[in-house]
Amino acid sequence: MRIDRQRLEESFTQLGKIGETLRGGLTRLALSDEDKRARDQMAAWMKAAGLRVSVDQMGSIFGERPGTEPLPPVMMGSHVDSVPTGGKYDGQLGVLCALEAIRTLNDQRARTRHPVTLAIFTNEEGARFQPAMIASGVMAGKIALEDAYNARDKDGIRLGDELERIGYLGPDPCVPRPIRAYLELHIEQGPRLEEEGRSVGVVEGIVAIAWSRLTFTGVQDHAGPTPMRIRHDALLAAAGTVRAVRAIPARVSPEMVATVGRLDVSPNITNAIPGRVVMSVDIRDPKDENVTRALALLEGAVKDAAASEGVGYELEHYWRVPLTPFHPEVVGAVEGAARSLGVRYRRILSGAGHDAQYMAAICPAGMIFVPSRNGRSHCEEEFTPMDDIEHGANTLLGAVLELAG
Amino acid sequence: MRIDRQRLEESFTQLGKIGETLRGGLTRLALSDEDKRARDQMAAWMKAAGLRVSVDQMGSIFGERPGTEPLPPVMMGSHVDSVPTGGKYDGQLGVLCALEAIRTLNDQRARTRHPVTLAIFTNEEGARFQPAMIASGVMAGKIALEDAYNARDKDGIRLGDELERIGYLGPDPCVPRPIRAYLELHIEQGPRLEEEGRSVGVVEGIVAIAWSRLTFTGVQDHAGPTPMRIRHDALLAAAGTVRAVRAIPARVSPEMVATVGRLDVSPNITNAIPGRVVMSVDIRDPKDENVTRALALLEGAVKDAAASEGVGYELEHYWRVPLTPFHPEVVGAVEGAARSLGVRYRRILSGAGHDAQYMAAICPAGMIFVPSRNGRSHCEEEFTPMDDIEHGANTLLGAVLELAG
Repeated sequence: MRIDRQRLEESFTQLGKIGETLRGGLTRLALSDEDKRARDQMAAWMKAAGLRVSVDQMGSIFGERPGTEPLPPVMMGSHVDSVPTGGKYDGQLGVLCALEAIRTLNDQRARTRHPVTLAIFTNEEGARFQPAMIASGVMAGKIALEDAYNARDKDGIRLGDELERIGYLGPDPCVPRPIRAYLELHIEQGPRLEEEGRSVGVVEGIVAIAWSRLTFTGVQDHAGPTPMRIRHDALLAAAGTVRAVRAIPARVSPEMVATVGRLDVSPNITNAIPGRVVMSVDIRDPKDENVTRALALLEGAVKDAAASEGVGYELEHYWRVPLTPFHPEVVGAVEGAARSLGVRYRRILSGAGHDAQYMAAICPAGMIFVPSRNGRSHCEEEFTPMDDIEHGANTLLGAVLELAG
Repeated sequence: MRIDRQRLEESFTQLGKIGETLRGGLTRLALSDEDKRARDQMAAWMKAAGLRVSVDQMGSIFGERPGTEPLPPVMMGSHVDSVPTGGKYDGQLGVLCALEAIRTLNDQRARTRHPVTLAIFTNEEGARFQPAMIASGVMAGKIALEDAYNARDKDGIRLGDELERIGYLGPDPCVPRPIRAYLELHIEQGPRLEEEGRSVGVVEGIVAIAWSRLTFTGVQDHAGPTPMRIRHDALLAAAGTVRAVRAIPARVSPEMVATVGRLDVSPNITNAIPGRVVMSVDIRDPKDENVTRALALLEGAVKDAAASEGVGYELEHYWRVPLTPFHPEVVGAVEGAARSLGVRYRRILSGAGHDAQYMAAICPAGMIFVPSRNGRSHCEEEFTPMDDIEHGANTLLGAVLELAG
């Protein structure tokens, strides 16, 4: 049984028009008008494929294809929201490969013992509302529903109000439920598959991640008449920390990454010495103990940077997840499907968080990666060759058939 | 003849309520509703003082007290706009001391040969619309009226439209005119007067200033799966440059200052490697040739920072003014007034730009500084002791009497 490459490509082209940027990328922030239109399109396709479509309290959309027995479903999922000026592959490729797998089951009039469900999770990116993966987090019981509703975007708009506004505040409880297995196809977002010429990554788990928020408080002053000798410039301390963060991985682990992605200066005008800088630090490694060592190095670097400029600081380690191993049975089903298709694959860890991470807390979960050209993602240049997408989608279909019986 | 300290203090308290922040500072952006209310209050006081009030095409407000002869006026001016979360002394103190000087002339029924004019210039700060000192710049013929009207704030709103909206798009041409002398009282915004226990600075001129805009373009990518070895992070290059800018003054001149005040990261989210950073560089020194040397050092530092991270850059030196010397006659009148009052004063250069800088291009100009506590300005903590303000206002009055004859 093989997916229909042309149909998949046509759906990909069509969905990609919703929120398309001038340079061929995607801006489709969670619960925006563009997100609503993409959801509406997906729901229409799901209904046309004969699925029973429902929406839960977090706005996640589920479409179920019945099985022959009253058993928990095999769920395939991903998301249709994007980062600002992101790409067309992150998220929606997983949703469309899952839809294509179901359409193929329909074409073949295939019967499975377990139902097969397509899931579209709300606000995976965390670009508009924090934290990321908020809907699967609520489903897994890791985030309170009220906290999720009260998440606000940078304009102060509540997630709960936006769900209602776009018509996706659903009735179904967003709680753990029996699920046979959860499978997510996603772009790698790193360079390894492409570098090694492989079409498929059999994902064994997700690396440990720590997010910190750092605030330096100096003395805001006029850039003209304030002599260098009396300055306490928050941006100087921040700049020292940006460089220190870059140096941390080399001191800890070859697989570690460390990033300052966000940095906001106040008052942020040309002729004022910055009085305040708020910045993010993102540290990831396969080993949790390496993350712990890196956070200790970060604390030392921040202390030094603040002391050398005479500014105050606050460092909050506000989010941390250990290595998430995927379920051996699901990883095995993915590997078996790839092997029997004869595609070039490798086992791999995910450096990025995905809804599969929360789903792994409530059911056997696994992921399938396809290559990212030049390792690029979260940018308009995201690209995966159609040959690799076809191999990935067939691997997904094979794994689902194996798990759904 | 002496000003009325209590009346000055009362007006200062009253005007300071318009746009007051919770912590006692001021947010009164140019042409905002708060700016309009402050203008209305000033115009009412000016009319009550018997001045003939007019508004020019740039919204600057002028109030004239007639002289005994048909001669050009002695003009005292400053501004009532502020930076965001700025202080109550920058700008409005100069306007209120000028008003108090005129009220004192009225009290004493003093006659002057030259008219005495109070001027309130539009958008001195440049915090909302760039460039700064836009209205005096138009008056001096340095900025085209149409360019000024087309300046837009960060929400895309035109300066010309806002002038009309708040009712301050006046009929009088904004062009050079005969002016006997221009005098501006302002806070020092630096620490020197306070450190030396002096009440008044006799300002000899304004330092040379260069503003540059720097853009680093790296490769935006996902912070998780992108190995350190393939990164081209625009923020790393920016951080290196922030530190390099800090190091420049020590290599060039003890009176030089160099500041990165503005820094904007794209896409500015926790889990994306910054693809683009736009930042400002502000360099000032009494000597123009020192500024030239500093800009050469900046260019080298930027080139090195970009090369070491493998990112592109664009460096634009978009605004530069040489040292502005004030007119010896006006500086002499200020010094003479301070001396005859017996106040502690010193000659000083201004590190900040002021409307007096543009006015110096079309008439004899000078300034009077009063101390800034801890050298602080452009912040809610701005403060000048009332004793110093009284000395400054009396120095202004004395200089005006000398120049107006």
